[in-house]
Amino acid sequence: MVNFNVLTKSPIFKGLSEEELKELFGHILFRVKYFKKDDLIACSGDELLSLCVLQKGSARGEMIDYSGKTLKIEDIETPKTLASAFLFGKKNRFPVTVIANNDVELLSIPKPEYLNLLQTNRTILNNYLNTISSRTQFLSEKLHFLSFKSIKEKIANLLLNMAGSTYHSVELKYTQQQLADLFGVTRPSLARVFGKMQDEGLIKINKRTITLTNKKGLNELFQKN
Amino acid sequence: MVNFNVLTKSPIFKGLSEEELKELFGHILFRVKYFKKDDLIACSGDELLSLCVLQKGSARGEMIDYSGKTLKIEDIETPKTLASAFLFGKKNRFPVTVIANNDVELLSIPKPEYLNLLQTNRTILNNYLNTISSRTQFLSEKLHFLSFKSIKEKIANLLLNMAGSTYHSVELKYTQQQLADLFGVTRPSLARVFGKMQDEGLIKINKRTITLTNKKGLNELFQKN
Repeated sequence: MVNFNVLTKSPIFKGLSEEELKELFGHILFRVKYFKKDDLIACSGDELLSLCVLQKGSARGEMIDYSGKTLKIEDIETPKTLASAFLFGKKNRFPVTVIANNDVELLSIPKPEYLNLLQTNRTILNNYLNTISSRTQFLSEKLHFLSFKSIKEKIANLLLNMAGSTYHSVELKYTQQQLADLFGVTRPSLARVFGKMQDEGLIKINKRTITLTNKKGLNELFQKN
Repeated sequence: MVNFNVLTKSPIFKGLSEEELKELFGHILFRVKYFKKDDLIACSGDELLSLCVLQKGSARGEMIDYSGKTLKIEDIETPKTLASAFLFGKKNRFPVTVIANNDVELLSIPKPEYLNLLQTNRTILNNYLNTISSRTQFLSEKLHFLSFKSIKEKIANLLLNMAGSTYHSVELKYTQQQLADLFGVTRPSLARVFGKMQDEGLIKINKRTITLTNKKGLNELFQKN
């Protein structure tokens, strides 16, 4: 059975009431699939033909590298969707292998039925477009940061970008862990560089507020290259 | 005036006839904006409030780095859209500054009106979802390749991925320039490594067909790390 209460909390269906969801689901076809711990949900490369929403349990995304080692990429918890940015597009295939961590219930809505939902309900359309666009924007930002060689350059770029020409202090919206993920480095390395930049008098850190004490010095980090 | 003939060729409106587009545009609000050579169309950081489709001329995306140098990122030609993957999402802002290369006509459809179009017409909805999802998939693939240190590893990863466990030769679908863009390297560097790998007996290149003459050797490139 569909758990409408859980669905109202999912990124795709948020903003709708249980009653509205029940009414909408009365007009489309869907399935609920059941998996046990360590069951294979999808293989990397499988074509994505349905929107898949976890309504119970959690799953993990895995990749196998060339030495045969299995790497865990991420955990996907209820009420998230599986690979929602890969449902459309030229390569609508699972980017990773998905395996159940425990008892899993997966709501599966075939693409044509999901398109009906998007066309009928503006909230779902908006939620879905926001979800996949935010994903693109995160990846695009991450690629931008990777183009800078050192962590120091990445931090300086972020701070100068946030401050613009007017401000001399900025409020970090990311946690250190989120920032480390964005830069593709570990959290301790990031913390070390932040500390070093404070010692050098480039910045002053007070909780989440960072004062750019030497904007000229931060700028010069880039001119050297 | 809207140039419906040009629009039928754009990624968002392809598959629709001029007549169908005229009928659809009869029910929504939109503007056509005119720009001269070197006019500023949008600033990096400006909020994206409309779908923008070029119906005449071309524009360039630029960034200014910290030393004050202007870098051209890309040319955007008619009938492409400007930053269509940035219209929704948490950071719906222009990622680059956009400047007219010549006489430009820009069709601008405000977001609420564009949502109406997406809900009324399934072809446009499908086209748009495919366009932004393909962009995400390209960025995700690019990030994956950047995680390998050398160009040689990147090439080996691509070939082994394409060949899987069954095949011993693959047909490249990318041009060398597209491949270089994906890897974030220059075309000549890429060509040099391809040549070197052939000399080492790892692969044999015949136009676009690449034979994996030493799959074990390609695999070993990863086990060393």
